[in-house]
Amino acid sequence: MESKLQKTIDLIAARGRSAALALQDVKTEKINKTLLEMARQLTKESELLRKANARDLTAGKKKGLSPAMLDRLTLSSKAINAMITGLKEVASLPASVGTRYELRERPNGLNIYKVRTPIGVVGIIYESRPNVTVDAAAICLKSHNAVILRGGSEAFHSNMALVSLFQKAAEMNKLPTGSVQFIPSTDRSAIDHLLTKDEQIDLIIPRGGESLIRTVVEKSRIPVIKHYKGICHVFISAKADMSKALPIIVNAKVQRPGVCNAMETLLISSKLPIGRRKQIINALIEKGVTLFGDPATRELSPVIKAATENDWRAEYLDLRCAVRTVNGLEEAIDHINTYGSHHTDAIVTEHQKEADRFVQMVDSASVMVNTSTRFADGSEYGMGCEIGISTDKLHSRGPMGIDDLTTYKWIVEGTGQIRE
Amino acid sequence: MESKLQKTIDLIAARGRSAALALQDVKTEKINKTLLEMARQLTKESELLRKANARDLTAGKKKGLSPAMLDRLTLSSKAINAMITGLKEVASLPASVGTRYELRERPNGLNIYKVRTPIGVVGIIYESRPNVTVDAAAICLKSHNAVILRGGSEAFHSNMALVSLFQKAAEMNKLPTGSVQFIPSTDRSAIDHLLTKDEQIDLIIPRGGESLIRTVVEKSRIPVIKHYKGICHVFISAKADMSKALPIIVNAKVQRPGVCNAMETLLISSKLPIGRRKQIINALIEKGVTLFGDPATRELSPVIKAATENDWRAEYLDLRCAVRTVNGLEEAIDHINTYGSHHTDAIVTEHQKEADRFVQMVDSASVMVNTSTRFADGSEYGMGCEIGISTDKLHSRGPMGIDDLTTYKWIVEGTGQIRE
Repeated sequence: MESKLQKTIDLIAARGRSAALALQDVKTEKINKTLLEMARQLTKESELLRKANARDLTAGKKKGLSPAMLDRLTLSSKAINAMITGLKEVASLPASVGTRYELRERPNGLNIYKVRTPIGVVGIIYESRPNVTVDAAAICLKSHNAVILRGGSEAFHSNMALVSLFQKAAEMNKLPTGSVQFIPSTDRSAIDHLLTKDEQIDLIIPRGGESLIRTVVEKSRIPVIKHYKGICHVFISAKADMSKALPIIVNAKVQRPGVCNAMETLLISSKLPIGRRKQIINALIEKGVTLFGDPATRELSPVIKAATENDWRAEYLDLRCAVRTVNGLEEAIDHINTYGSHHTDAIVTEHQKEADRFVQMVDSASVMVNTSTRFADGSEYGMGCEIGISTDKLHSRGPMGIDDLTTYKWIVEGTGQIRE
Repeated sequence: MESKLQKTIDLIAARGRSAALALQDVKTEKINKTLLEMARQLTKESELLRKANARDLTAGKKKGLSPAMLDRLTLSSKAINAMITGLKEVASLPASVGTRYELRERPNGLNIYKVRTPIGVVGIIYESRPNVTVDAAAICLKSHNAVILRGGSEAFHSNMALVSLFQKAAEMNKLPTGSVQFIPSTDRSAIDHLLTKDEQIDLIIPRGGESLIRTVVEKSRIPVIKHYKGICHVFISAKADMSKALPIIVNAKVQRPGVCNAMETLLISSKLPIGRRKQIINALIEKGVTLFGDPATRELSPVIKAATENDWRAEYLDLRCAVRTVNGLEEAIDHINTYGSHHTDAIVTEHQKEADRFVQMVDSASVMVNTSTRFADGSEYGMGCEIGISTDKLHSRGPMGIDDLTTYKWIVEGTGQIRE
């Protein structure tokens, strides 16, 4: 027999599906107005948000959350202002849905083209940060998708408050009921049941730690777009310009080590003079980075620890870094395609043919030449905003924006043609 | 412990993966030469093919295959010539991989663009017709993908012979070993094991009956693109031009009833004068179509049988057809979105606003205005050839050609930029 929670989720999924069908024909202007209204609500109802957030923070302190986690959970004025800016930005982006492309006129007079359409119902499953609630809902709505949100338990009351404001803004602009929904339960089994609703929900995007994502992929009957982790490499070729190489590796490793596009493994060409190789190593050591190297690399400095096979597959997310000496471009490419996570990988070289070969052969979502892996990000790519980064190859790869939440249909316009 | 068959499949998957990495950098010219060489081999080795095919035909007769199935299994001169034409066509299509698009120059001087790349290793699981072996391999290779084929048991020897010729053509043109592979077993467990190789295989396309496809989707850890069935609708509006409506419904139902883009349900507006509604019904009855209708439709002719709920969801694939009288456009749209398979649906109307609303609201891969659903086909859409039709919304929708077997990577070209 179905539990009460399952019935609630059945209802949410069914409402989402009918909202999605109705959203196909809603004017983008109405959606933009909803986003701007939500921005207004965030200012107007700041007291309500603060109260809901205080409940989460009190519970979080009792639970013993770390200061860093409590910080991410806090709806400070700065956090709220960032959401407001985000909403305004998304509202100002051009519409994606409705665009016609790949027009072809056939010899029999048929006009055939693709038109960009919403995907339908998008489910977002995420962990602590409440700002994801607003960002994800805004991006889904902008692409005319209905969204079902399932946030982490730590931010439950904050998320509920944010969603109620979004629903108010949607209602004021007469968007279909069910356009923005939230699973009102922190029970793990809610996710399990949600992932069986493949008749109503078209896409799941999980955002959070690797274990959350693996669980979602394993259980889901609905297509999932995701990345498990970012094991990003920078390869310093023998033809590298050192005045570029040094700032790039420091930036890629140190500027924000806890994110998926930070460097986790540095590859150095053995053909680079030993003095330069030492310079590279020391640039990281000076910044407090702990290095794990293969035997050849360990000869460059006594402080480098011995790397094991595990280090080549490690996503440290902190000031540790694996370093390997490779005998040139081909070995670097092999290492990346074997141990990498197909997220973002960079080469530093002044040699165009070498750069071309690297770009051609590295099988990753983003491939960088003479710049930092840290640029792999929707806003840096000029997409306005992102809903995640994909290391999948189907549908979307790399930073995902509004276009990535659309599909297309083929339109065939005839004047009575029949097939011979 | 792994069985011998499992070990064979492990080896095939690993070879496929390394071939795919190498194929990223192979000149398209080499691939085109391989396709043309295969066309030559088909002529040169026709005796070898005939012998292999005879083994399958003898076994098929013993097994009691129907004449229609034996016909589809036969490698006649006509069937071989069709493969040769297909190979030449695919060879002459422009290359898809390598195309750059969505170029953007960022304020910090970074040049960012997408480049079309192969997906990697594509697995095709199909049933009886041996021509799929050649067509699928050609389309996969043309898009620089390695392909692993698993054909039906009835065509085993024919498929093996065709693959051996393709491998010879690939070898003569020095394509990477493992570019075209075939699972040398008709054991069902071979498919089960193949579908677990998600580290090496990027995409599975099943082609065949619904039960095959459901089994593949259920067991696969690898992304699958597919369609289960085609329940295609034609809606005749009150504003239809009868000189278009009658040929279209006859064509959609009768011209080739056994295929996925044939009409399975006809929807007629109750606002159409009764004389015209009778004309529509009679046009199908005259062609020998057995109709299943709702009560309102059954009043139009005594030979219409009573439809049950099952008829609205039926893919007859023969000269049966469900018919329903709807009270206008919105009810037609509702019916299609509720009971349809999101494959291909058509409206016949002279009223532009009605056509626009239908196109906007019908949530299907192909939406047709004043033409037959039978046109939903890669070659009719000008794609040169197709590898299947997708009713999925992610990655590809509708007829799938060479572009649909590609993904992209983001290239970021810098001059030493680091992130602030």
